[in-house]
Amino acid sequence: MAAFTHRLRVRFHECDAQGVVFNANHIAYVDVTLTELWRAAFGSYQSMVERGFDLVVADVHAAFRAPVRFDDELDLHLTVERFGRTSMTSSWVSQVGDRTCVVGEIVHVCVGTVDMAPVEIPQDLRDALAPWTAGQSA
Amino acid sequence: MAAFTHRLRVRFHECDAQGVVFNANHIAYVDVTLTELWRAAFGSYQSMVERGFDLVVADVHAAFRAPVRFDDELDLHLTVERFGRTSMTSSWVSQVGDRTCVVGEIVHVCVGTVDMAPVEIPQDLRDALAPWTAGQSA
Amino acid sequence: MAAFTHRLRVRFHECDAQGVVFNANHIAYVDVTLTELWRAAFGSYQSMVERGFDLVVADVHAAFRAPVRFDDELDLHLTVERFGRTSMTSSWVSQVGDRTCVVGEIVHVCVGTVDMAPVEIPQDLRDALAPWTAGQSA
Amino acid sequence: MAAFTHRLRVRFHECDAQGVVFNANHIAYVDVTLTELWRAAFGSYQSMVERGFDLVVADVHAAFRAPVRFDDELDLHLTVERFGRTSMTSSWVSQVGDRTCVVGEIVHVCVGTVDMAPVEIPQDLRDALAPWTAGQSA
Repeated sequence: MAAFTHRLRVRFHECDAQGVVFNANHIAYVDVTLTELWRAAFGSYQSMVERGFDLVVADVHAAFRAPVRFDDELDLHLTVERFGRTSMTSSWVSQVGDRTCVVGEIVHVCVGTVDMAPVEIPQDLRDALAPWTAGQSA
Repeated sequence: MAAFTHRLRVRFHECDAQGVVFNANHIAYVDVTLTELWRAAFGSYQSMVERGFDLVVADVHAAFRAPVRFDDELDLHLTVERFGRTSMTSSWVSQVGDRTCVVGEIVHVCVGTVDMAPVEIPQDLRDALAPWTAGQSA
Repeated sequence: MAAFTHRLRVRFHECDAQGVVFNANHIAYVDVTLTELWRAAFGSYQSMVERGFDLVVADVHAAFRAPVRFDDELDLHLTVERFGRTSMTSSWVSQVGDRTCVVGEIVHVCVGTVDMAPVEIPQDLRDALAPWTAGQSA
Repeated sequence: MAAFTHRLRVRFHECDAQGVVFNANHIAYVDVTLTELWRAAFGSYQSMVERGFDLVVADVHAAFRAPVRFDDELDLHLTVERFGRTSMTSSWVSQVGDRTCVVGEIVHVCVGTVDMAPVEIPQDLRDALAPWTAGQSA
């Protein structure tokens, strides 16, 4: 198991008048990282949706440790921590170089694409994410 | 005929590291103003969509005259300038108090909600917008 | 003590391709609500900054209970739960009518405007927020 | 002379409830592209600011030709069209593969970083941008 890593460049308009990345944008960065995780696991997010299920965010927690600035390269390291019947809990760490800037956890619930009601997470989704799931061998 | 006016309060995260509203957000403010225009004309944007048509932006031009800052109250004054067969051209002026900050024009195309292909703008949409259309009596 | 309430109208571009408010935008809505709280407590956010201190977000948690859609009127009810020496913890509930959509907690740290280092929260800030602080009489 | 090209991946939350990139976000993409142009020309945007000048957007025009969707790879091709005494006019084309999605022009004004008043564009900025300026040899 290894964390899934996505590097992004902080955009000018993602910073607020304090000159640092606005707090809510750090949550959006996690969404960007997850899209890249779906690409690594399934080919694309769309491939996942075409199987008839989608993921919605049920819960998020973020602790802001250090500011991130315009034009910084930010690395998000994301680990799938555990699966419930219909939910998936991930943790992440955002770093600029060796400096930890944000740590957090996010819970997704798997839903059917027709009625958006929770459904059991398919085994093949669990399998596809195994390389980035805690306690799994890559 | 009078311009349709919508006042909004500038949010912290709409300002960039230069401390002023990021340029693209001024375009988003026009969208917010148009939603309020649909509410005044039709009851809501949704009411318009339920009639089977929608509007998409085809063209926009904005000239930035003065900066707008966090917590400013910004008035957008919007006028429907003219209708084509499938398009609608509007102009707007954004002001903080008496200071003109942004002026621009935006062109919308009317499309069917099923295939998103251009359709002739219905007469009742033209009629409903008459109070804010140049050259029309309110 | 009563919660501080701010009502806002959901904007089209705050909704994502799933047709509901994007999760991170709910965190941004809390920031908008806090700006209005500063206005109620101090006259404006700027008045607070002019006293030489600012607030930065240290921690946020949000639980998403129900989706919020374009053009919904969303009420955010925010309560200051407690003060630490340099920190302030608030909770909020976001509702569309009687439906609870998001609940969460957010921790701010008070910093000096010159060096952005944590400073003890001034007594007059605590006093000004008393009407919306748990366990305080209004 | 060749256009400066920047490729970006469309993010989920940049798409609106119509499932396509929200119009104002296309303007933000131009800003992202310009940041990369400053990096190519000067090392970074910050290097430019440290020389004592900055650029602010004075005017923008965009024509939307085709929708852009979530997860599309979008190429922005930007050309510096001409310099005035204090202004710089650029044009851009945004494409998904061979499909042209947005075309536009944007005018920046060079300002001093202290008072944000217009200043003559330094010769070394003109020189540094020559490889991407119309009518210049690379």
